[in-house]
Order: sequence, then structure tokens, then C-alpha cells
Amino acid sequence: MEHIFITDVAPRDGLQSQAVTVSTSNKLRLIRALADAGVRSVEATSFVSPKAVPQMADAAEVIAGLRFLESETGLRTSALVPNIKGLERATAVGAREIAVVISATKTMNLKNINMNLAEAEENCKATLHAARASGLATRAYIAVAWECPFEGVTDPDTVVRLAAAMRVAGAGEIVIADTIGAAAPGQVAALLRVLAQSIPLDMLAVHFHDTRGMGAANAYAALEAGVRRFDASVGGIGGCPFAPGAAGNLATEDLVMLAHQCGFTTGINLDVLLLAVDMSEAFLGRPLGGRSMPWLRNRQQQRVAQGS
Amino acid sequence: MEHIFITDVAPRDGLQSQAVTVSTSNKLRLIRALADAGVRSVEATSFVSPKAVPQMADAAEVIAGLRFLESETGLRTSALVPNIKGLERATAVGAREIAVVISATKTMNLKNINMNLAEAEENCKATLHAARASGLATRAYIAVAWECPFEGVTDPDTVVRLAAAMRVAGAGEIVIADTIGAAAPGQVAALLRVLAQSIPLDMLAVHFHDTRGMGAANAYAALEAGVRRFDASVGGIGGCPFAPGAAGNLATEDLVMLAHQCGFTTGINLDVLLLAVDMSEAFLGRPLGGRSMPWLRNRQQQRVAQGS
Repeated sequence: MEHIFITDVAPRDGLQSQAVTVSTSNKLRLIRALADAGVRSVEATSFVSPKAVPQMADAAEVIAGLRFLESETGLRTSALVPNIKGLERATAVGAREIAVVISATKTMNLKNINMNLAEAEENCKATLHAARASGLATRAYIAVAWECPFEGVTDPDTVVRLAAAMRVAGAGEIVIADTIGAAAPGQVAALLRVLAQSIPLDMLAVHFHDTRGMGAANAYAALEAGVRRFDASVGGIGGCPFAPGAAGNLATEDLVMLAHQCGFTTGINLDVLLLAVDMSEAFLGRPLGGRSMPWLRNRQQQRVAQGS
Repeated sequence: MEHIFITDVAPRDGLQSQAVTVSTSNKLRLIRALADAGVRSVEATSFVSPKAVPQMADAAEVIAGLRFLESETGLRTSALVPNIKGLERATAVGAREIAVVISATKTMNLKNINMNLAEAEENCKATLHAARASGLATRAYIAVAWECPFEGVTDPDTVVRLAAAMRVAGAGEIVIADTIGAAAPGQVAALLRVLAQSIPLDMLAVHFHDTRGMGAANAYAALEAGVRRFDASVGGIGGCPFAPGAAGNLATEDLVMLAHQCGFTTGINLDVLLLAVDMSEAFLGRPLGGRSMPWLRNRQQQRVAQGS
């Protein structure tokens, strides 16, 4: 059985746009619940401006609070950093792994971080260099890799060029991200085929959103293309609960079920993972769960009824 | 651009388990709305016992009522028939295409039609023979082709044997059906690879349910395997609205969007198809729609707001 490696991004990508504030201790509880389910990597927080993303204002406390869990369980926990200053805040509290984000279009970088593409690229390279110099593990996101909300379909050549540049700059993992959930599986397969010509497959990860209901199909296309590293978010947390049509990330439970049925191991126990969904629902005060959740809940109830 | 051929099964597989009775004239309106959207084939009704499936009690009226639409638009309309008696009822009102169903496990045939596998096979063969002798087009469903709710994982050899038997008996199209929505894309690819060794790909169709949220992923796996004929149900109608975890069929809108984005033509206009979803919601009195529906509705609203 082949293994796939899942990074749960709910504590960062999932929570960052939620209107309900989740306390630091509840974030740490959620991360522990994910570790209990067998998740081996979590994107824990983001050292961005607390004014821009109030939900991430406790980034330092979250990273500091994870130290015991990391050493106890070997859990990988990463923190997103927007620049060198964010990196310094992360290293000051003992972060061991960081992630940088570059968007593959000019407009998305301008809207997101007020830099053009060349400036954003230099910023990410400098941050990666500094992180490697400090001995940190690193991930680099290539955002809007398939489609940009401002520029439409993304140029694959730009994605390939940026991925190569991030690798040279020291990124240990290159995460190809469908930030707005616009890709279809044929497009996923096509881009990954091209990327695999210049980036080793075991350095590539994919990050899908489920906006159009094609998250699981895209994950399957990536599996077929040989990718074995996936981002996902427990309960499908993510997106904006107030924006119609803006669904969350590909749900971890959907990815795990698909992977197991396709003959891959994940190390994750689906029944225990449901406890992390329950916990997230309590924290956010609304129903959560991926596309498979009604079926998973039903199976759970039947098992309870049968006493098995 | 390659074309895929979609049979919308909402009027039969979608409606048969709905608690709300839909009138004959509303069924005909729905089928016309599907034709207006560009759907070229519809599974219109079923000549089963009205006691067992009250929603299909008007099968004769539906088929008779479709004659004008068929000749006007060239729409293919099929009727499910359980046996020779059902076939006779269908031909009496001018049906041009019928479908038979055989389940790939003993227990499912016993529970469904009170026949063992050999008896069910003989029944289907006889019905197909008689239908072909009357000049009708024919489809044969192999139900529970991946998993049976009573026997678990289905033996692929049985599916291959039954598919070959139905072909020899005169089936024009063999529909491999994931009746309970249990398959994952890797399993879909594996079975279709084996089937393609003995059945021409252009005779194979697939029929998915979306119970575990893997309908779109399974459709992509079938596309990759070379299958070009798909069942789907507008709005994802199907399953039982009262059974938790029993989701409906793969939604036509989900399949169409996936196919278009992967570079296939379907002949179906998604905006017009949404009118058929609206109509179905009015008839059934509850919200419907596939996994892509929030995004499609949002796009529709933005277009209206922009006056485009």
C-alpha cells in the first residue's frame, strides 16, 4: 500500500476567514484532536498583520503552545509568514517550519500583498533563504495556480517558472494551490504533468478548495499524476461563510475516504477524525463537514446502534 | 473537442423514491425543460408495479405524452421494464427504447425482484430478446456493480460475465451502475479497465450516485478510462429524502461542468439547465442541486446584476 501525506490546514486556511473568533486554547485543542486522529502535519497559524486577519492575532501563542505536542507526537506544525519580519516573529517563538505564498498572477499579488509579481517573488525568495539559514523546514505556495479571480485562467508557464524559482530559493515542498476552487481534474492533470518535468514529484503538494464540488475529483487527478502530498481541512472549514458560492477547502475526511478506498494509507482514523469535526462545529457554532459527512455520520450512528 | 453523451435519469431514478407525487403533466414539463437545455436522452419512467412504486403509476401516460416531443426534437426517451409484461405495457403505448436491470449479487436480486441471480439473468435476456424483436433500442443496467448493501464488495468477474451476457442477448448499451454510491475512482478505473477487454467502450455507460461525495471523481475516472456515456440526474434528484446518508444521483449540472472544463462537449447549456433545477424544486418543494449548485447560483446572480 502506498502512503499519502496530508497537511491539515484548518487551523490556518480554514479559520482565517471565519467570523467567529476561536480562542487560542481551542485552536490548540483542535490541533491535538487532529494529531489524535493520526494527522502528522498541521498548518497551525499565520504571522500576518493582526489588523488584516484578526483570527491569527495569537500566532505566537499558538506556536509556543504547540511545543509540547510537537515533541510528544512528532507532529509537524507550520506557520505561514508573509515576509522576513513575519519569519522573525515565528522563529522568536520556536517555529520549526514556515510557509510562504506567491500568487501566479500580477493582480492577485497586488490585491493580496500590494506587490507586483517580481517584488512578490523577491520577497518569497529572501524569506525562504533566511528560513533555511535558520535551519527551518519550508513550504512555498503557488497560489491561484489554475485560475485567478481577477485575471482568469493562469498561465501554466508562470506556475512552472515560480515553482522552479521557489525550489532554487530553498523551498522543501512546493504547494500548487487552487485558491478559489476553480480547477477541474483534467486541468489538474495537465498542469501537474508539466510541473513534474522540472520538479521532483515528492516535492510537490496540492491544495484544493471545493467551491465547485470538484475537490475530490481534483485530488484523484493529482493521485493519478503521482502526487502524494495533499493539503486538506478537517470539516471542509474555509472559504467565507457569508459569501454565497465560496465553499471551503477540500475536507480532510473526503480526501481520507477517497484515498483509503483507492488503496492508499494515510495514517488517519476516520472515526477519530469525526471528533475533530464535532469539536470544530462546537467552536464555530455551525454545521461543518465535507461531501461525505452525511454518509460518515450515518455509518457512525449505525455502528453505535449495533454496539460495534 | 470530444463529445460525451448524457442520459438524464431524474424522471425515473430521481423521482421514483420521492415522497411528493409529481403529476404527469409536471413530469412532461420537466422532460421538456431538459430537452430545452440540450439533453438528448432521458430515462422517462418505469413500467413497474404501481403498488411497489406509486410515483411511476402513470408510466403509460408519460410515454404517450412524449411522442410529440420525441418527433419534434429527436430526444431519446427510455422506459425501465422489469420483465416481458412490463415490456408489453411499454410497447403498447409506443415506447421506442427500454432498459432492463440485473443486479450483480444474489441477495440484491432476491430483495429487489424476488429472483436469484440465474433467474434474474434469464428474465433480462428474455426481455431484451423480445424488445429487439420488436425493433426497440435497449439498455441493460448492471446494478450494484461495485458494492452491494447486502453482500459488500461485488465480484468483478460477475459484472464482466453479466455485461457480456446482456450484450449477447441484444443490449445496445451496458450501464455499469454504482447503485448505492459506494465506489471510489480507483475502483471505477479498475473495473472499467477489465470490462473494456470484452465490451466495446462505446457500448459502455456509467451510472453514479453521490452518496459519499465521490460522484464527480468517479465520473472523471470513467472519462479517463475512455467511457463517453453517462447517466446523471438534474439537481441530483434521487436517493431517499428521509434516509440520512442516502444522497441522490450524480447531478447533471456537476457532470456537465466537469466535462466542459475538461474539454468535452455535452450539447447542454448550464444556464438553461438551471431552469430545470428550479422547476424540480417547485415540483418537489425542497431545495435541490448538485455539489456545484451554490457556485452556479452565485454566478447566475452576478450575471443578472451585471446585466449580461
